[in-house]
Amino acid sequence: MTQDRSDPPAHDITTEIDSLRTALTRNKGKRIRRLLKTMHPAKIASLLETLTPEQRIAAWHQIDPSVELKVLSHLPIRLRVQLRRAMDADAKVALGELNQPISEDTAAAADYDEPETQLSLVFDALQNGKLKRIARLFRELHPARIAGLLESLPAAERATAWSMVDNERTGKVLRHLHEEVRQRLAAEMDLEDLVDAARRLEPDDLVDLIQDLPDTTGRQILQAMNMRERARLESMLSYPKDSAGGLMNMDQIAVRANIKVGTLLRYLRLLDELPPNTDKFFVVDRKNQYQGILRARRVLTARPEAAVEDLMETDFEPVLAEQSSEEVARRFEQQDLISLPVVDAENQLLGRITVDDVVDVIREQAEQSMMRMAGLDEETDMFAPVLASSRRRAVWLGINLLTAFLAAWVIGLFEGTLQQVVSLAVLMPIVASMGGIAGSQTLTLVIRGLATGQLESRNTRILLLKEAGVGLLNGLLWALVVAALAIVWFGNWAIGAIIATAILVNLLCAAFAGVAIPLLMRRLHIDPALAGSVVLTTVTDVVGFFTFLGLATLVLL
Amino acid sequence: MTQDRSDPPAHDITTEIDSLRTALTRNKGKRIRRLLKTMHPAKIASLLETLTPEQRIAAWHQIDPSVELKVLSHLPIRLRVQLRRAMDADAKVALGELNQPISEDTAAAADYDEPETQLSLVFDALQNGKLKRIARLFRELHPARIAGLLESLPAAERATAWSMVDNERTGKVLRHLHEEVRQRLAAEMDLEDLVDAARRLEPDDLVDLIQDLPDTTGRQILQAMNMRERARLESMLSYPKDSAGGLMNMDQIAVRANIKVGTLLRYLRLLDELPPNTDKFFVVDRKNQYQGILRARRVLTARPEAAVEDLMETDFEPVLAEQSSEEVARRFEQQDLISLPVVDAENQLLGRITVDDVVDVIREQAEQSMMRMAGLDEETDMFAPVLASSRRRAVWLGINLLTAFLAAWVIGLFEGTLQQVVSLAVLMPIVASMGGIAGSQTLTLVIRGLATGQLESRNTRILLLKEAGVGLLNGLLWALVVAALAIVWFGNWAIGAIIATAILVNLLCAAFAGVAIPLLMRRLHIDPALAGSVVLTTVTDVVGFFTFLGLATLVLL
Repeated sequence: MTQDRSDPPAHDITTEIDSLRTALTRNKGKRIRRLLKTMHPAKIASLLETLTPEQRIAAWHQIDPSVELKVLSHLPIRLRVQLRRAMDADAKVALGELNQPISEDTAAAADYDEPETQLSLVFDALQNGKLKRIARLFRELHPARIAGLLESLPAAERATAWSMVDNERTGKVLRHLHEEVRQRLAAEMDLEDLVDAARRLEPDDLVDLIQDLPDTTGRQILQAMNMRERARLESMLSYPKDSAGGLMNMDQIAVRANIKVGTLLRYLRLLDELPPNTDKFFVVDRKNQYQGILRARRVLTARPEAAVEDLMETDFEPVLAEQSSEEVARRFEQQDLISLPVVDAENQLLGRITVDDVVDVIREQAEQSMMRMAGLDEETDMFAPVLASSRRRAVWLGINLLTAFLAAWVIGLFEGTLQQVVSLAVLMPIVASMGGIAGSQTLTLVIRGLATGQLESRNTRILLLKEAGVGLLNGLLWALVVAALAIVWFGNWAIGAIIATAILVNLLCAAFAGVAIPLLMRRLHIDPALAGSVVLTTVTDVVGFFTFLGLATLVLL
Repeated sequence: MTQDRSDPPAHDITTEIDSLRTALTRNKGKRIRRLLKTMHPAKIASLLETLTPEQRIAAWHQIDPSVELKVLSHLPIRLRVQLRRAMDADAKVALGELNQPISEDTAAAADYDEPETQLSLVFDALQNGKLKRIARLFRELHPARIAGLLESLPAAERATAWSMVDNERTGKVLRHLHEEVRQRLAAEMDLEDLVDAARRLEPDDLVDLIQDLPDTTGRQILQAMNMRERARLESMLSYPKDSAGGLMNMDQIAVRANIKVGTLLRYLRLLDELPPNTDKFFVVDRKNQYQGILRARRVLTARPEAAVEDLMETDFEPVLAEQSSEEVARRFEQQDLISLPVVDAENQLLGRITVDDVVDVIREQAEQSMMRMAGLDEETDMFAPVLASSRRRAVWLGINLLTAFLAAWVIGLFEGTLQQVVSLAVLMPIVASMGGIAGSQTLTLVIRGLATGQLESRNTRILLLKEAGVGLLNGLLWALVVAALAIVWFGNWAIGAIIATAILVNLLCAAFAGVAIPLLMRRLHIDPALAGSVVLTTVTDVVGFFTFLGLATLVLL
């Protein structure tokens, strides 16, 4: 057992060292772990001895905890102490004893200046190459929290941390990631690992994942499934992602109306564990036609000899697979549901939708309309590469530039006026800005009304009158205030009167535009949240500049 | 039985007619119904005869369906036929047979030109005073849907429709209304009715309602409860509305660890019906200390002789009553929960939070940050009175006016330059607008990152670098485009160079401001969604105008 690190002896394990070294320099954590898993602890020990201290620590961090002690027993004492110390420090970190000075090992302790958050723990571990700490932390966290941490990391760090997620949990973590991040991390995985992760997912989550992946990868995953699974997945994949069919799962428990509660309970005991969110069973006939629901809480409180048909509810409406996920979410929210049966046009029971997926839909929808209003429709990854981000946002800036040039063109019409009364140039942004703010308030109210389904053709006119009233009152108020300020500033009564009129006109126009634009877009099948504010500010800019400078031209020249 | 409608005979029921007439003219549906309920059908019939045809139909629409036939039997045939026809037409409307021509009764049929939606049904019924139609429709709808319809109505119509909600359901409808609407409708109710409605609510919903009502009304409702209920409500009221304690309900089922499943099942059967969303029971010791959970689905699949302690999970973390509802919502979302135990600092089980309330929290939070970005924080009623709306929005417009004047002041510094090169006035809004759009994209991303907890001190610098990179790339791109357009337009190379520089500088500043402003506001405990965009556009306006006009002054003069 030599300790010559710089020049490893050329015996029979050279190739393994080589591939391990390559993997270490390339930071391919998963590959290192796969290599290490196939080796005997003694072999790993001799391997560790041949590595440089940095490489040794890095490789050590990839060794499975179950063989750690065995590997240690094969090492010379000096190395054993060194690695044990690193381990102890890690254990303390993992146990949250972060504020206690860590004996001797001051180098390790010095790394933890700001140990408050799990995120900073991950960052520190990444900076120091102590990947095992990340693995240990991840093992204690819920997959959703791991997903959140991964999304908080920039791309390179994210890939490294991602490689430390246990194979059994990669699927669950993937499920909780936002679309863009999920695509990118899945694309970096070996197909073999991806298929393995996919197998551990619930069918509805797997369908989501396949829909987010490139076509060929998706097909490869499907081919790795067995016949029955594949048929099931393919039927689920046939529904669009934002439909009830795309949201549904197929883990429902269907029962016949004529059985007794006792029989049902015996059957359930055979299952050992019910699928999560099973608050009701679905009653079907022989042809799998949906007939009604049986609530689990009725089963809990019923006598064993009671029949399902006496306990079931036949007036519970199922949802059609084609219905939009938005409608489904609204129904869950309004009726406080946990699960909902999905049927096809022939009333055949297809599956069920559960509240956990609906909560995700609600959050995503709400997030989307906020992001869309800033033209960030697809930007679900906070740390997307600069180039990708720039390209996507450039589109929005380009559209805005067109409208800005339109406003500039309107100003250009009055160049002569501006030349003679330059104070108009000083005041004109005020008119445009007040209109833009007032209009965007109306716009936001209308977009929300459309999203909640509370705004219809029958009450639009009433809302328009109300908003016009608000525009009139605020128009009068601020017209007077601005006029007074303008008169004080420029000592010109005419300019005060002109700006007051322009502000009043612009606020009234803003109210009309704020109501009309989203309704018009809806009729043209454009999402009002996406383009509404650009169109609105164009209107208020153009009207504001035109009224103000136009009036000035008429009055002052 | 005379049919003199204009001059009722002065016999013993005059006072009842009088109060009914008053109630009819004041449109007090509830009072009419209360009056009618105490009367004998024969008396109602004679009353109806003394009314004018319009009043008769209106009163008829307030009669309880259960006595309709009895009242009819006491009426002369002519009136009977008339009222029956109105009833039939209503029944068809209620059954959705809207597109079928309604026999003879052409007048009624003509009302249904646009019968597609429930909302238009309500509007038509209100216009024609056929309130019974509304009551019938409401009886078939879920309370949440009724709340939605009420929110879609302007104030006067809303009050009328509200009076047609059955007493048993007013509480449930109130629960689903937005705060502002809820307050207004509750304020219009008689205290007696309000207390009656309050009694039918779940404690958590009742607590919400009391918190939204004026103090005195809330206290009156509390005093109408019995001792035990009041003590319970008061302890729940002691937690802030947006904390776990404010969200919790007290309908949990707590069990001891040492009992057997069979015993538990016998106990559950005694309850007959379990509280909704009971997916788990809570295990406590003798002192009501929380020990763990027992999932309902484990009970369903367990043998009766198994003990609770063998099936319970002790590693399920309860939530502290003081925790914020935001944290609670995030945990529900991440861990796909249906219910969650709430404990105090001494680990005493206080109650439980269920997913239906969390879904409301999630939707409200998401809605709020969108509404806040437009300064519509409190505007939850689309049809709030014009004056109330104007006053609230005026604040926002006033703040914006200050920032607009700041921008105007910056422009004013360069009045001399503008006078000499008037084309600068034409182009300057473009610089400000591009900065504003780019900045608001970064701002929205950061606000979302802060809301999801993914942005922390450790990754802020990386995000800032990324956003600066995006600002640089888009700045270069659009600087070139705008410069080219400006040169073509004004034929002046210097102006092209100046505007290009100004746009690049402004987009870089926008990126920094977009990251820095929300972080700063957060540190000052101001909601970044509320004031972020105003501060941001101030920065981009000021920087845009200053750079552009400043450079122009240096180069062109």
